[in-house]
Amino acid sequence: MGNRMTISSLDEFRQLLQSLPKADEEARDAARQREPQLTKPFGSLGRLEEVSEWLATWQGHHPPELATPRARVFAGNHGVVARGVSAFPAEVTGQMVYNFKAGGAAINQLCQTFDIELDVIALDLDRPTADFTETPAMSEDECIAAMVSGMSAVPEDTDILCLGEMGIGNTTSAAAICHALFDGSAEVWTGAGTGVEGEAMATKISVVGDGVARHKPDIKDGLDALRCLGGRELAAIAGAVIAARQYRVPVLLDGYISTAAAATLEATVKGTLDHCLVSHMSLEPGHQRLIKAINQRPLLEMDMRLGEASGAALAVGILKGAVACHTGMATFAEAGVSDKG
Amino acid sequence: MGNRMTISSLDEFRQLLQSLPKADEEARDAARQREPQLTKPFGSLGRLEEVSEWLATWQGHHPPELATPRARVFAGNHGVVARGVSAFPAEVTGQMVYNFKAGGAAINQLCQTFDIELDVIALDLDRPTADFTETPAMSEDECIAAMVSGMSAVPEDTDILCLGEMGIGNTTSAAAICHALFDGSAEVWTGAGTGVEGEAMATKISVVGDGVARHKPDIKDGLDALRCLGGRELAAIAGAVIAARQYRVPVLLDGYISTAAAATLEATVKGTLDHCLVSHMSLEPGHQRLIKAINQRPLLEMDMRLGEASGAALAVGILKGAVACHTGMATFAEAGVSDKG
Repeated sequence: MGNRMTISSLDEFRQLLQSLPKADEEARDAARQREPQLTKPFGSLGRLEEVSEWLATWQGHHPPELATPRARVFAGNHGVVARGVSAFPAEVTGQMVYNFKAGGAAINQLCQTFDIELDVIALDLDRPTADFTETPAMSEDECIAAMVSGMSAVPEDTDILCLGEMGIGNTTSAAAICHALFDGSAEVWTGAGTGVEGEAMATKISVVGDGVARHKPDIKDGLDALRCLGGRELAAIAGAVIAARQYRVPVLLDGYISTAAAATLEATVKGTLDHCLVSHMSLEPGHQRLIKAINQRPLLEMDMRLGEASGAALAVGILKGAVACHTGMATFAEAGVSDKG
Repeated sequence: MGNRMTISSLDEFRQLLQSLPKADEEARDAARQREPQLTKPFGSLGRLEEVSEWLATWQGHHPPELATPRARVFAGNHGVVARGVSAFPAEVTGQMVYNFKAGGAAINQLCQTFDIELDVIALDLDRPTADFTETPAMSEDECIAAMVSGMSAVPEDTDILCLGEMGIGNTTSAAAICHALFDGSAEVWTGAGTGVEGEAMATKISVVGDGVARHKPDIKDGLDALRCLGGRELAAIAGAVIAARQYRVPVLLDGYISTAAAATLEATVKGTLDHCLVSHMSLEPGHQRLIKAINQRPLLEMDMRLGEASGAALAVGILKGAVACHTGMATFAEAGVSDKG
């Protein structure tokens, strides 16, 4: 795409989405050829076999590698928090960014466990997005700037990229995006987030409904939904997904917010998320619905609902196991084991 | 239990099962007290939180540790293979043991990935169990010897124990054990194993039905089912589960065979598997049914059906993530993060 910093309209992103790299069929075929030779009944490693093939296909080489896993966590603040949609105050976004930098959050421990390099990018925390029940959450320029921040955060030499977020109020954005782009009422897309209940839950549902009602006429595709209802951290995730595809870096999406951010691309140009895997099914009820809407199947189901790329980081362990089996196992011929009689 | 080598009857095992160590409530309470202080919405790490508490409870100390994970894979041969119940010939059991020792199997790669110490114990491979459609698979002495082998394979200084197996024909044993001990026809408990289909599948189902019909009158509890319908590697797994409980070592069970072997203990004395977790749901249809019958919930669902402790080893990665979060995260107070408003 040449110099990505020169992007000056969402339409340029729309064009970009039309010309992303395709699946590497040679790498995929090489994975498919090796798998039945390994000393196990064919298919008996189930999703591990699928994942190895997927990694080879989107890394563009065989064997697939996982030497350099990275996680990027984007943080943003949301004007809609003023409407009382979260159980935590907005200050917590910045406090948690500090906690990430100090190494005290869940994502720090998970990245350490699986040798994942972590970077946390705080996006204008002192400048929350606009309350989307009143105006679009972001101007076109703000949305583009956040997407470009996300693109810039992806190093080219990455074997797998975990994408996550932190932003008090952002399950409200995710719900609004899904309600705008996919079937279903505001109610079915809205969940407890960090733990709202009762009156606050009713408020959250009506905020989602009001926001979508206000902007629906202006929302022609996923990028419009991202701009009108999203947030900087969601736009950054969308940008990172695009850069990853350009660099042939497979992506592990995290929970509801991360998947909703990425889904705005899929809703704009189908197939844009083929290099992405939803790492886990969140307890947030909208996530399950969203996963179905974009034809994904999550790798893990751990009843998690934290964000921060925590589910994605956990799934790196599974991917490491998959690649170790695919690349390290002996073949029937090497091991002198009789193949199926 | 004093010197375990002196056990001379299955009744002594029955007595032993009545006097196993109970849950450590002090360690459990310590885990429960720490969890809500960590910098995340309470409950947002879902099953990771449950797993940390379970580990503390059954290790008998807080914080839980995972410095010394071990896997034990037991191998045995089955007389019932002569009836044509497997897609692979019986020689493959020994060939795969050789492959394990040479480091070429899936379990070797997974143990290397998650730093799990692996030992493979071949049990009289040149002496298959009897064809259980004719006589009990094992005499009482043979069953006890195999159980004692399993007990002896568990070092006391183990933080988590993965139990798996290799034995051509042993899904037939697992199906017969389940059919004898739990509700459901031979058909619902019998699956494809390493890949039987058509005529061979019909044979496998009738072998399971015939075996259970023959021994049902003699089967008063799980240990009887283990002796009459099991195999040496299944008896060894049962023994290892008992030793692990004595040493306060939590256990990750693997797939259908490993769970069926352990379930013979639960069917003998309820609660015997409280220190065990089913690591994954196998694609083998009986496994799902069995997991329900013993009130477990598997950690992973990867469409795997390999055995060898492969699912258990993969789950060690999840447990490592859980313990890292529980022990390493900052508290709200330490990080200066506002707790829920």
